[in-house]
Parts: sequence; structure tokens; C-alpha cells
Amino acid sequence: MMRRYVLTITCPDRVGIVAAVTGLIAGHGGSVLEAAQHGDLQTGRFFLRIEIVADSLPPGFGPDELASAFEPVAAEFDMVWHLTDTDRPKRVALLASKEDHCVADLLYRWRADEIECDIACVISNHEDLRGIVEWHGVRFRCVPIVAGAEPDAKAKAFEEIARVLEREQVDVIVLARYMQILPPDFCAARPGRIINIHHSFLPSFAGARPYHQAFERGVKLIGATCHYVTAELDEGPIIEQDTRRIDHADSVEELRRVGRDVERTVLARGLRWHLEDRVLLNGNKTVVFP
Amino acid sequence: MMRRYVLTITCPDRVGIVAAVTGLIAGHGGSVLEAAQHGDLQTGRFFLRIEIVADSLPPGFGPDELASAFEPVAAEFDMVWHLTDTDRPKRVALLASKEDHCVADLLYRWRADEIECDIACVISNHEDLRGIVEWHGVRFRCVPIVAGAEPDAKAKAFEEIARVLEREQVDVIVLARYMQILPPDFCAARPGRIINIHHSFLPSFAGARPYHQAFERGVKLIGATCHYVTAELDEGPIIEQDTRRIDHADSVEELRRVGRDVERTVLARGLRWHLEDRVLLNGNKTVVFP
Amino acid sequence: MMRRYVLTITCPDRVGIVAAVTGLIAGHGGSVLEAAQHGDLQTGRFFLRIEIVADSLPPGFGPDELASAFEPVAAEFDMVWHLTDTDRPKRVALLASKEDHCVADLLYRWRADEIECDIACVISNHEDLRGIVEWHGVRFRCVPIVAGAEPDAKAKAFEEIARVLEREQVDVIVLARYMQILPPDFCAARPGRIINIHHSFLPSFAGARPYHQAFERGVKLIGATCHYVTAELDEGPIIEQDTRRIDHADSVEELRRVGRDVERTVLARGLRWHLEDRVLLNGNKTVVFP
Amino acid sequence: MMRRYVLTITCPDRVGIVAAVTGLIAGHGGSVLEAAQHGDLQTGRFFLRIEIVADSLPPGFGPDELASAFEPVAAEFDMVWHLTDTDRPKRVALLASKEDHCVADLLYRWRADEIECDIACVISNHEDLRGIVEWHGVRFRCVPIVAGAEPDAKAKAFEEIARVLEREQVDVIVLARYMQILPPDFCAARPGRIINIHHSFLPSFAGARPYHQAFERGVKLIGATCHYVTAELDEGPIIEQDTRRIDHADSVEELRRVGRDVERTVLARGLRWHLEDRVLLNGNKTVVFP
Repeated sequence: MMRRYVLTITCPDRVGIVAAVTGLIAGHGGSVLEAAQHGDLQTGRFFLRIEIVADSLPPGFGPDELASAFEPVAAEFDMVWHLTDTDRPKRVALLASKEDHCVADLLYRWRADEIECDIACVISNHEDLRGIVEWHGVRFRCVPIVAGAEPDAKAKAFEEIARVLEREQVDVIVLARYMQILPPDFCAARPGRIINIHHSFLPSFAGARPYHQAFERGVKLIGATCHYVTAELDEGPIIEQDTRRIDHADSVEELRRVGRDVERTVLARGLRWHLEDRVLLNGNKTVVFP
Repeated sequence: MMRRYVLTITCPDRVGIVAAVTGLIAGHGGSVLEAAQHGDLQTGRFFLRIEIVADSLPPGFGPDELASAFEPVAAEFDMVWHLTDTDRPKRVALLASKEDHCVADLLYRWRADEIECDIACVISNHEDLRGIVEWHGVRFRCVPIVAGAEPDAKAKAFEEIARVLEREQVDVIVLARYMQILPPDFCAARPGRIINIHHSFLPSFAGARPYHQAFERGVKLIGATCHYVTAELDEGPIIEQDTRRIDHADSVEELRRVGRDVERTVLARGLRWHLEDRVLLNGNKTVVFP
Repeated sequence: MMRRYVLTITCPDRVGIVAAVTGLIAGHGGSVLEAAQHGDLQTGRFFLRIEIVADSLPPGFGPDELASAFEPVAAEFDMVWHLTDTDRPKRVALLASKEDHCVADLLYRWRADEIECDIACVISNHEDLRGIVEWHGVRFRCVPIVAGAEPDAKAKAFEEIARVLEREQVDVIVLARYMQILPPDFCAARPGRIINIHHSFLPSFAGARPYHQAFERGVKLIGATCHYVTAELDEGPIIEQDTRRIDHADSVEELRRVGRDVERTVLARGLRWHLEDRVLLNGNKTVVFP
Repeated sequence: MMRRYVLTITCPDRVGIVAAVTGLIAGHGGSVLEAAQHGDLQTGRFFLRIEIVADSLPPGFGPDELASAFEPVAAEFDMVWHLTDTDRPKRVALLASKEDHCVADLLYRWRADEIECDIACVISNHEDLRGIVEWHGVRFRCVPIVAGAEPDAKAKAFEEIARVLEREQVDVIVLARYMQILPPDFCAARPGRIINIHHSFLPSFAGARPYHQAFERGVKLIGATCHYVTAELDEGPIIEQDTRRIDHADSVEELRRVGRDVERTVLARGLRWHLEDRVLLNGNKTVVFP
């Protein structure tokens, strides 16, 4: 893929935003590959995502120059904005436990160039996944969290995790069936940067053992939800969801098997959109430009 | 369609049930058109549904004779069972309010022979649907329920509804977006005979205004649930569910529009399965042989 | 819904199109409600759709004034463009035969304001649908086409149909299971203005009796396709498609029943997008901004 | 999972088949875990699949004894039948080329016990997949097929493949994106034993480069088809199919990415059903008891 700059903008809606932004880009000869916008009638906020072909801008006019040129427009319209460069892929850490289906799937897609990022490391509280992770040439780091340990043992584990993330310069944390509840301040410090896959169609069956809950309730579809993590468990902004049909003959174990397929595809889709800056936060909801 | 007898059976699971049932049918020369079974490992209950071609049995050996012949087998295996005759279609009453999409859809499918039943009447607390109902040659009965009226006004309305249902010899009551909460004893007296369509993917968004709830939560799919009504609101056994994709640009009004399509198809499917005796109760869950 | 002007544009892709168009609109104070664009890398064509809030433009600056103001921009970029006014709904004619499921569904949605248009008339080669059409207050016109009649009887029938369409000032013709092959010149004279629903997932099972073909081939899903009609049967640009699961136990009659639901929803969706100017032609393909 | 015997039966439909079969099983105390049947009205053939709990039969009454006991019933009803033992998993060979998404997925599912079989070996005409295959502890065998080589070079390659399959005692051959057309006699010698995944919704886009064909035609969904291989390319009995939504903005490369997910899930589902003896041949169609 050719190099692109991706500009994402959120600001109060008013007349002339797109004209100002595209006018600036066109003024420098910039060619727009893709653009999508959304005006939210409820909040009065405006959302914009534009992909600019890097080589269409003049020589020497890189992302820094584009950002500088953009500053006055951003100020005029009171914009919150980000400019990313596809030549600098995001750095991702996967947090996992013993189950490997999401980790194996993401590693496969990364190796097959289906998702563009650097996978900096996989962190787990168990050793089980070391083999598959290292086979992919990715660093594996085990940070044990002992159930029922002294109160601050978990806090210390998360301090260590935070140091690893810092050292690896991680941009995005993916909870690939991590099974541990993150400390609230850990979440609060990384808004819109931690992605979780929950194995139910939220808000149904939040919390523990959703496939058991689904089995007990006798639903006819199961689902999975990819969402940003906030301090409130399973309450963060939803990025993507999907469902699969089951029936009365399916045991909990069969729900798990069917569910793993939904989890994989929903997480992969949600992560890809995040990595391509296609997900914008709108309060506790998301705007997704797929 | 040729005339069939449909036998549905629930009993404790043990060796020889199917052999005994099919042996009896074959012993009278009965030809089986369709059969499906399920052994529930959790409850130890066994579920069986068999369609027998009426004309394959000897002359004079009708549903009553078949039932008599079946009695000893049923007793031996401690069966709860029903035998229905496709020549005696079930009598259905639709309860509706002002919104007509479910009623119009069911009337259409009934007229087009997509669902086999007699629609005995439509009962509503408003006059709005009289035109379309009567155009289909179906009796329309308005039983008003005034919001905020004296406490026993609602009770009296439901006594009147009960009289209509009795007079019309109704087998199945369909709440086709009725919008009124039924009295608990009214529900308790008709287990597995009242079918509701709820406009969400239960257990998400139970209760009032599910599309508003879905909009507020920012889910990426909406759904509908067809279930039997019990005294616990939105908690009865689920017959069928389905979902449709939405996105951030969809207003509550657009969720309603998309949702109406899911409601219609989910209700029509659930009702058809019920009318064809394809739904067996298993505690608060259902076994569906589609 | 508030009044809007919808501008659709197709032109060779180059730098500055969006800046020019949105700059012109913003220059007159125009507020953009929705916008979507697509640059086709294969053909080098650019596609744009913009919804402008009518009341955001100055008093006296209506669609004609906007069109005049837009002329120089259109000329500069060599645009093919259309400007429509949501206060002037498109006039639709439905062509049908004996089967009523698509006609009944579209009439229902029209009456329920799910699709915004004027249904000018329903034309059929049979009398069967007169009752339901006239109940909706829509003119019904029977133009018989006798199978195996003299060669020019069909030509004469289509001349009469053309006169009706002319008199009713019809913008869009919907073949709602019309079952007659249109004369090539009739199609050629109305490019992008005749919409058909074909009861298969094209290009599978083009031509006659697609459910029989699907049954014979033993496919596991059936589908429906909404497309623009061209002189080549079942070869026109596809607007929308969808599929439903079937299995080995489904007879041709059951495929028909399941298929009717897909046909209805696919046709309704495709027609709605067309009526809202969300479908742009790109050679024999479509760009759809849903 | 507990040990089971799976009995599959095809025979002319007549009264008493199920009674005879289940009577025999019950007569030996056999407990039926699952049963499904289908009477084909078009061909007059009857299809039956029964899972018997091995331990419910008397000690010493194993699969051979069950088969012997079953012989008279089979003869009476002119049955084609198979009895398999879940303790003797089927032996599978994967044939692949350079693309690894299907092979990687099947190896993952095999390792995760989602599909029950022995993967005997992976045979490829290229060396690319050796690493991932051997990491899973599976034998990898490269049998090159040079394009444009002398006429009998390909025949010799398939003789070598046949020897490997023979030596490995392979029951099922899976073409996991193999990209080579098999010799007709190779297919004819293995009816119902070679499974292919075709990357389109057959019969649409049979033959080469289906994603290009889909892109050119402008379809709105793409699909995948898992089918048994016969001497007629892409014409064999269909086991499973599914589709995914695409739009005008998706390039051929994006169709490939989306398509890989459908291919994986459709192939895994079809193969699992085959391994569990859930797929019965009915002429050029299949009966699937999922």
C-alpha cells in the first residue's frame, strides 16, 4: 500500500468544516484517497476522517509540515484532531491468559499482513502461549497474577506490566481473552487505547462465564463484543459486535466452540479499524468509518 | 398439503422410546413424514416430534384411534404428549395496539397461506387497525384500556378479553406489539399459549423503549425476540431471535424502521413453528425442531 | 423530516473536487447533513453525494439558484450531476403479475412512510392485485399480455404501458415480480430508471425458475438481487443482494416461501436507496452510499 | 467426549425403517445420543444417522458385533450403510499450495480439538508451508507440479501423491486451496472422499480467479463453497456455503481478505460435519445433519 496520512477530527458541528479542511489539503496539492464524516444530531459534534496520499504533497512537505499548516484551521473550528502516518505503524501489546484462540488468530493475521501494526510483545499471566508466540518471532513476557494472593500482589503485577508497555512504547493494548480485571487507574490512564473482546453480545451477559449465562437463558444466538476498556467493567464504548445461531442441542462446550469463531472475527475487525484510525470516540459510543 | 397427525412427546430419557413409538406407528402401517428428537443431558428429559401421514393409516383409524392405541406406550414411558391433526388448524387471536407492522405482516402471511391457522379475531385497545383487519375479513374487537384509570378498570378489560377468547375458542394468543402488560394470573392460566414479540435481543434491553436503550448504549446490532409469555415480564422461554446491523449514523427512528423488519420475520417464524407444534417447552427454555 | 437538497456528482478524479463543492455550499451558508464519496481506482472516476439542509440557505435561494451557482464548478470539473429536492418526491410505478408479495410489501412500507415517494400506479397483466392496490388508494391499471399472441401484441401492450407512464409522469419503474421480459428498446430508453428484483443470488440462477434451479443444484443458501434493468436480461448493475440459509429438507415450495422474505427486504432496501439518490452508476456496477 | 458408534443409512423409503433400526439397538440396550432422518420426496430415498453410546451396549458387544447384528435389518430394507467408531478417528491429508490461510486454520482447530481426526500429512507442490506444518508436528511432503512441464509429469506427480495417501492410510483428502486440477480418474476413484473449498458462492464464479470475477460483476456479497470433488470441476455435491457483505469500495485484494475468513469457516464446518459422518450423499446433492 502506498504511504498515507490519516487525519481524524472531532469538533462542534457548524458550516464550513469540510470546506476548510479539504480546501487546505487541496491548496497543497494533496490527493484524498478516502473520506468519511458524521454529524451527530444528539451531541452536536462533528466527526471527520480523511486519508491523504503522502506523495501527492510537495517534496519536503511531510506530516510535521502538514500538521503545522493545519493548526490555524484546527484552532478556528475548535478541533480535537490526530494525524497519523501509515509509515509508522502502531505498536501493539497483546495480553492473554491460557486460551490461545484470539492470540493465535491475531498473530496469524499479522504475519499474513491482514492487520498493519508492530506486535511489540505478548504478556500473559501463564506460560502456556510462549511456544506459539515465540514461533512467530514475537517477545513473550510472563507476569504471573496469583489468585487470592496478598492484596497488593496484583497491583505490583500491573506496575510491572506498565513498565513493559512503557519500555516497548506500546500504543494499543489488546485484551485477547486476558481474564483479569484491570485496575481502574490503569484503565483511566489509557482512554481509547485498551481494546477488549467480551464473549457475549453486550449488554447481555456481562461479567463472568457468559456462555454459561447464555446457555441457562436459552437464547437462540450468541455473540461477541469488541469494546474500549474503561474503569466500568464491560461498559466501555462498543467498537464491533456480531452473532451466530445456536440451538437447543448445543452444550456450553459447543457454544464455546462456535463463540470462538465470532470472538476472533469481531476482535480482528475491531482492532483493524482501530489501527487504521477508523474509530472515533463519541462519549461512551463510537463512530466507526469502516 | 396432505393431512398429517403431529405427535409431540416429552418424557424422562431412557432406552427404547423411539423404538416403542415408531414400532407402534409402523405396526398400524403409519408412514412417518418427518421426525426429530433431542435428549437433554442437563435435565435428563427426552423430546420427540413425529409427523405421520394420515392416509397411511387404515380407514377408520383416525386421530382418536391413534391416541387410544398410543396410551399404553405413553403410560409405560411416563410421557407428556399431544396429538394434533393438521385438518384442525389452531385458532389464533392477535392482540395489538396502534402500531400495525406485525399485524399487517401476519394477516398478509395468513392470506398467502404462509402460516396455517384460523385467525379468529384481532383485539386492540385502539380503533386504528380496524380498517386493515376488516379488509382481510377478520373480526376486529376494540377493548379500550385507559391509562391511569381506576385500579380495576384494567382488570375488567382483561375479563372482557378473556370472554372474547373463550367465545372464539382461541388456542394461541399473539401479542403483536400489544404494549400492555398482561395480568400475572391471565398469563399463568395460559402457559405456552401466549406468544410475544419483544423488540430487542433479550436479555438485552428488556422493559420499555428498547430502541432508545439500544441507541443510548451504542450497540452495533439490534434484534428481536419471540418468546412465550409468563408472569415475569420478558423472562419467558425464548422461541426465536435474530439481529440486524446498524451503525453510528442511525437515529432511534431508523432503528425502529430496521427493527420492524426483524420483528416481523422473527414473530412470523416463531408463530409458524408454534402452529406446527415444532416448539416444546423445556423448563424456561425451548426445544425447537424447525 | 426537514427539507433537503441532494446533490450527486460523478466526474474524473482529481485534486480539489470536494473543496470546490463544499466551498461553494459553505459560501452560501449551506449546512451539510450527510456526505459520502468514493474514488474508483479502476476507472479513475470520482463519486460524491451531499445532502444540504434547505433552510440553511438564504431565503429565496432555492434549488434553481443553487443549481445556477453550481454550474461553473460542474463545468470546471467536467461533472455529470443531479440535484434533487426532498419536497418533490419521485413518482413510482409498480409493474406486477399475479404474485403479490412484493407489491403488498411496498404498498405497506409506502403507507407506513418507510419509503418516501408517490406511488403513481400499479400496472399488471392480470386483474388479481386490483383489490389490494385500490384498498391502498392507488390507481390500478390492467394491461394484458397474452402468451403466444401475435408477434406485435406484446409490442402494443408496451406502447400502452409507455403511455401510462408518460401520463403519470413516472420517474422510476419497479418490476415487482412482473414475470415479463421487457422489450430491449423500452429498457434502453430508461437507463438507471427501471429496478428489478430477481429471485436468486445473481449471477447464479439467472433466467427462469431460479428456485427450481437452486433446488436442483443443492445450494445451501438462496438469495435475491435488486438491480437496474438493461437490455441484457439479469445482467444490469446490481444495487443490493442478500441470502438466507436453507437445507436438504426444504422443497421448492419452501424455498419460495423463504425466498419471498429475502425478495421483499432486498427490493425495499434497493428501492429506498434509489429514491434517496444513494445509488450512482459506475459502468455496469453501482456505487451505493447507504 | 464419550465413545460413540455412528450409524448412517440410505435406503428406499418405506414403512418401518426407524422402528426396525431403533428396535434392534434398544434390543441390545443401546442408548441413542442423537438421531436425525430425512425422507426425500423427489428420489424416494430415506436417510438416517444415529449416534449410539458405546458403553450402553453389553461388554464384548463392540462395533463388529453391532454390525453383524445389524446385517439382517440392512438386507431387509436394502440399505447402504456405514458404522464408524469415534475411537478410530478418520485420517486426513491436506493438499495445499502457497497460500496458508486454510491450512493454518485447520491445523489450529485440530490442535485445539475443534475437529476430531488424525492429520496424517500435508502435501504441497511448494515448500512454503513446511515451517508451520512441521511446527504442529505434522509430516510435510512436497510433490512439485511444474506448470507447462511435459504432459505426463503431472500424472507422475499424482501417482506419487496416491502412493503417499495409500501409505498414510488416508480416509479424507482436503483441498485446502490446492490450486491444481485433479486428474479425473483420481477423483472418480475417491467418491465422497475429497473435499474442496472454492472461493465463491457456487454456481457463481466457478473456475479461475473467482474474486476477480466477483469484482468485475459488482456483486454485493461474496461467498465460499465447500463441496465434494468429482471429475466435473466445481460441480460436485455442495456440503456448506456462506456469504459476507462487501461494497463498492472494496478492491480485489480486500475481497480476498474478507473471503479468507469465509473460506476458513465454511471449510472447517464442512470438514467437521464430514468427519462426524453428518453428510450423506443424495445423487449430486447432500443431506447434512448438523
